[in-house]
Amino acid sequence: MTKPAPIDLRSDTVTRPDDRMTAAMASAEVGDDVLDHDPTMRALEDRLAEILGADAALWVPSGTMGNLVALCLHLHRGDQFLAPRGAHVLHHELGSAAWLAGGMPESLDCDAGPGRPTADAVRAHTRGSNRYDALRPALLCLENTHNSAGGTVTPPHEHAQLAAAARDGGLRVHLDGARIWNASVTLGVPPGALTVGADSVQVCLSKGLGAPVGSAVAGSTEFVAEARRMRKMLGGGVRQGGVLAAAGLIALERVDSLADDHANALLLADGLRELGWDMSTPETNMTLASVPDVGLTLERLRTAGVLAVPMHGKIRFVTHRDAGKSDVEEAVRRIATAGV
Amino acid sequence: MTKPAPIDLRSDTVTRPDDRMTAAMASAEVGDDVLDHDPTMRALEDRLAEILGADAALWVPSGTMGNLVALCLHLHRGDQFLAPRGAHVLHHELGSAAWLAGGMPESLDCDAGPGRPTADAVRAHTRGSNRYDALRPALLCLENTHNSAGGTVTPPHEHAQLAAAARDGGLRVHLDGARIWNASVTLGVPPGALTVGADSVQVCLSKGLGAPVGSAVAGSTEFVAEARRMRKMLGGGVRQGGVLAAAGLIALERVDSLADDHANALLLADGLRELGWDMSTPETNMTLASVPDVGLTLERLRTAGVLAVPMHGKIRFVTHRDAGKSDVEEAVRRIATAGV
Amino acid sequence: MTKPAPIDLRSDTVTRPDDRMTAAMASAEVGDDVLDHDPTMRALEDRLAEILGADAALWVPSGTMGNLVALCLHLHRGDQFLAPRGAHVLHHELGSAAWLAGGMPESLDCDAGPGRPTADAVRAHTRGSNRYDALRPALLCLENTHNSAGGTVTPPHEHAQLAAAARDGGLRVHLDGARIWNASVTLGVPPGALTVGADSVQVCLSKGLGAPVGSAVAGSTEFVAEARRMRKMLGGGVRQGGVLAAAGLIALERVDSLADDHANALLLADGLRELGWDMSTPETNMTLASVPDVGLTLERLRTAGVLAVPMHGKIRFVTHRDAGKSDVEEAVRRIATAGV
Amino acid sequence: MTKPAPIDLRSDTVTRPDDRMTAAMASAEVGDDVLDHDPTMRALEDRLAEILGADAALWVPSGTMGNLVALCLHLHRGDQFLAPRGAHVLHHELGSAAWLAGGMPESLDCDAGPGRPTADAVRAHTRGSNRYDALRPALLCLENTHNSAGGTVTPPHEHAQLAAAARDGGLRVHLDGARIWNASVTLGVPPGALTVGADSVQVCLSKGLGAPVGSAVAGSTEFVAEARRMRKMLGGGVRQGGVLAAAGLIALERVDSLADDHANALLLADGLRELGWDMSTPETNMTLASVPDVGLTLERLRTAGVLAVPMHGKIRFVTHRDAGKSDVEEAVRRIATAGV
Repeated sequence: MTKPAPIDLRSDTVTRPDDRMTAAMASAEVGDDVLDHDPTMRALEDRLAEILGADAALWVPSGTMGNLVALCLHLHRGDQFLAPRGAHVLHHELGSAAWLAGGMPESLDCDAGPGRPTADAVRAHTRGSNRYDALRPALLCLENTHNSAGGTVTPPHEHAQLAAAARDGGLRVHLDGARIWNASVTLGVPPGALTVGADSVQVCLSKGLGAPVGSAVAGSTEFVAEARRMRKMLGGGVRQGGVLAAAGLIALERVDSLADDHANALLLADGLRELGWDMSTPETNMTLASVPDVGLTLERLRTAGVLAVPMHGKIRFVTHRDAGKSDVEEAVRRIATAGV
Repeated sequence: MTKPAPIDLRSDTVTRPDDRMTAAMASAEVGDDVLDHDPTMRALEDRLAEILGADAALWVPSGTMGNLVALCLHLHRGDQFLAPRGAHVLHHELGSAAWLAGGMPESLDCDAGPGRPTADAVRAHTRGSNRYDALRPALLCLENTHNSAGGTVTPPHEHAQLAAAARDGGLRVHLDGARIWNASVTLGVPPGALTVGADSVQVCLSKGLGAPVGSAVAGSTEFVAEARRMRKMLGGGVRQGGVLAAAGLIALERVDSLADDHANALLLADGLRELGWDMSTPETNMTLASVPDVGLTLERLRTAGVLAVPMHGKIRFVTHRDAGKSDVEEAVRRIATAGV
Repeated sequence: MTKPAPIDLRSDTVTRPDDRMTAAMASAEVGDDVLDHDPTMRALEDRLAEILGADAALWVPSGTMGNLVALCLHLHRGDQFLAPRGAHVLHHELGSAAWLAGGMPESLDCDAGPGRPTADAVRAHTRGSNRYDALRPALLCLENTHNSAGGTVTPPHEHAQLAAAARDGGLRVHLDGARIWNASVTLGVPPGALTVGADSVQVCLSKGLGAPVGSAVAGSTEFVAEARRMRKMLGGGVRQGGVLAAAGLIALERVDSLADDHANALLLADGLRELGWDMSTPETNMTLASVPDVGLTLERLRTAGVLAVPMHGKIRFVTHRDAGKSDVEEAVRRIATAGV
Repeated sequence: MTKPAPIDLRSDTVTRPDDRMTAAMASAEVGDDVLDHDPTMRALEDRLAEILGADAALWVPSGTMGNLVALCLHLHRGDQFLAPRGAHVLHHELGSAAWLAGGMPESLDCDAGPGRPTADAVRAHTRGSNRYDALRPALLCLENTHNSAGGTVTPPHEHAQLAAAARDGGLRVHLDGARIWNASVTLGVPPGALTVGADSVQVCLSKGLGAPVGSAVAGSTEFVAEARRMRKMLGGGVRQGGVLAAAGLIALERVDSLADDHANALLLADGLRELGWDMSTPETNMTLASVPDVGLTLERLRTAGVLAVPMHGKIRFVTHRDAGKSDVEEAVRRIATAGV
């Protein structure tokens, strides 16, 4: 008897392109995006700009590159940037914000809720000294949904207040919207309502939406022109990328279906709570478990046939289109049976 | 009467995936390469390592990123690196060798032939001062075929002498082998014969071989482990990249067919010479035209229905799988007819 | 009637060379430190190495450059470094730790006392993930005395535990000892007792010790050889610096006299407390005042003829050799009279 | 019988402060230049701005830092900068132009004379492509006198043509005027006549003028305000630097006396030519010897009691205020006697 396949709740990045996507990829019209612009890539970028309420958008190979391009353009040597404690740019991009973009990070406490700093926290860091030898705050980098806080959502009015506080203090605003689609679905507002006041926004097509390879960064026409150059510098300029953009265009049709992932995250959190686990309440497609020994519990989960990852001292489970309701129910059963 | 489509001889980067490739992409087995390794990506990397005579290889989104990863790993702050005059890393990667890799470039004269420096030129720069305040030469960066010299080929014994001179002088060696496949075909030796003594090599799958999106960097196991980390830093780590790797695997089966491109480049150079043009003798899939006014001639070519690009004061024509013998013959006819 | 000169308690950096120092400067034997080594500079560096228990030392123009040289040598691109919350390298060096040294900072909570993190806090950040895509902690940067915490002192056993925790976790240790002399006097131990387990230490000659222009960085022979090169890169290599080193040698004879500054800081804190101020208890030559409106109070102090500076939401007063007991008493009187 | 002291013709950087300078240093009025501005430093900076025809000037510890500050402010990530072949910023500043300032260098051929590029050479590099993926030329970095070419002088009209060509092409202009004083004396024009059209200029006080430690960078008010900040970042902000500035002020009174050094350089070149040496004709205080084996000849010179340095394949002799006419005559005698 073979062991059943593990249920993979490590990340929505494990989602695979389905048949419709691969068919679109196979028939995509492509070109040399460096020389001419690839037509399918261009269509994707135009569609993204429209959805995000931006002048223009630029495809990039990963969310990390999207954030990096934006930070490089917004920051000058040694500039300070603010980000909510635990932000992806602070902990999960290998320090590229510092050595590549030259930015000196400052974590903001999250007193408005998990992953949600207050406008006052922003203001406290923008009332800077005028002395020539003081750190220069230059950028507020928000994250919606906030990953390490458990996929939490910042509502539009809070986002707007944060952005306004930053702009009042002379800062630019970048939004790491890798999972902005999830925030949009939970809040029932279009993505563009979550980018108000931002100078740039990064979004991912390869997470819950299921496309292979690809993110984008959007902003003003001037920003995107410079971003295109910065992308080339970093090695993110590609040829015939339309094969990927074709999948991205289909991904954008699927935003509403993220509601299923969110329902499944609630199902999982409730199921584990009934087993006595201390779970965060999912706002989108994630739930965090507080356990005494993260490494040990992850190992037991693996043995029981359920995969998850450590996240800042907790365990993170992520639901996604390739792990549906029955998989989540089976995951709870396996955990119960194994007595993890 | 519609105008016929222009014949695109700007670059072999304009090649598009054919049906066999797109079918392979659509059916590729994929995974999350950050979490687990994508199986098709892994197969491509293993195959490349084998072909290139390296311990391991790593997929990257572009040749620029492949070179950049290697330079970042080989160079410390301010180190000097040597490259043949006109090298791609010097002129066509937007200065990333300097600001990102922190390298101070030194051009080598090409006295062994177009694009081919001598071992003596390398030695002249490695007999450095021992003073603590002298520039530290750290890397020789070769390029085979050499693009801006007109796709010229460095034979194995010359390559070996250059690499030996570098290593004797305490330098590492990186090979920009974006078009190593063309060199291999012209020289009639396997690609591995052209990487001897190199600490790293970058190769492209998206030029003459016709795959969309993708290059690789190869070297020792330790080098590739660090390269994987550096790729992530630069934003080149992707998910489900197997869709691209599947095309790359097919590209690798086609190396021999580059001989057709080479024959067509000869055909083109001969044809234009008969029209009175001053053409370089193609060694691979390129030929350079020396003309009095590059901009004017390019414009006339475009009007005649033939596309080419400026290259360091000349005009470069590149033959490729999407511009076959009849296209090249037609290009010569159009140029003759228009009296460019 | 002219207004009396203000009493300057902004920093011990305002101290001026006295007659003995200027005489020594005028008669110093000097040389070209880049070509040969300046003999007086060399004598100063040898003396510093001896005092600090290091193989060698290197003069640098400022404490910022001393820290910067050390961070550049200890950190690779994107490496994480740990520092006590409020550390000088985090807030007062204009982000050079990030853009120049490429380091990603992480603040340590100070649960052992003001400016004093615990060894557990260090360990919490060194038990890192083994994943290739996790931040790499590489350096613990301590500060003794800790400036923004109010000149607080870390005792030798705590320092040793912190350094040991760092080394156990594979981290290097740098000590920002700009005011190590003050810590040494308060603790009654030689400076070398406060550098145990450190790979590098930076000390200043131009603060409480009264020399003009100059700091040093000390460590192993290899470290200092590389530091000399890095100093040159940053533009800190100078000619005939013996004129400054001569002052530095005299400064080193005066460490014991810092006890006077410390007594005066206590006098000031007590005096202001009697006037109802909320003052920190000085451990060395500083005291911090907690006031409701820092800007307003600083302005009133200035009007009353007493200069101080803002420091992380408080007001910092620093005693020094150019503001003796009678000056401090007069400062208290002025503040009382003016009813600041 | 003791061996006579060697005659040191390695560099004018070996000059030592004389009694008048050290007396001025001992009595200088000083202050904390970071907090308030040091009064003597300020006087020096004002004087330099006036002499150089600039809005403002800023003291820096070394010429390398002066160049570095300017390059950091003029260049953005990856920008191309042009400099005459053999320029100090290209070869003698340890690659800081690349890793620190992020600049990609391009050497200009010197067809107008040794160390003197033509305006056409500048124009050839500013007629850049408009493609987004082309290198961006941003700065022309001139050097007058040009060190490695043998202290050669660019006359005002040539300088002006070069600067105009750069500005027409959208480039900024920085002048490495470490030895601008020598050029001024040879040409019989004030230093300000040699800075026309430059956005920034760096000058040294510690070479032929004999001050210990110190250079300056000058430009517009805005440039110098940013330069002050950049200096602090690099660790070049100092306290009580007036002790050095006092020497600098005296140095500025001595520019005319450089004519003696120039006469001595001619004497030396003539003397060695009579011995059969192949010498460059000095334009200022340097002369270059072309010899078959640089290392061997330097060793023989040292044995004979004459010190010189290698310089790009030749031997450089520098005359200066601490090696007067009799020293130069003695040097020729020693070389003749020893039959070097």
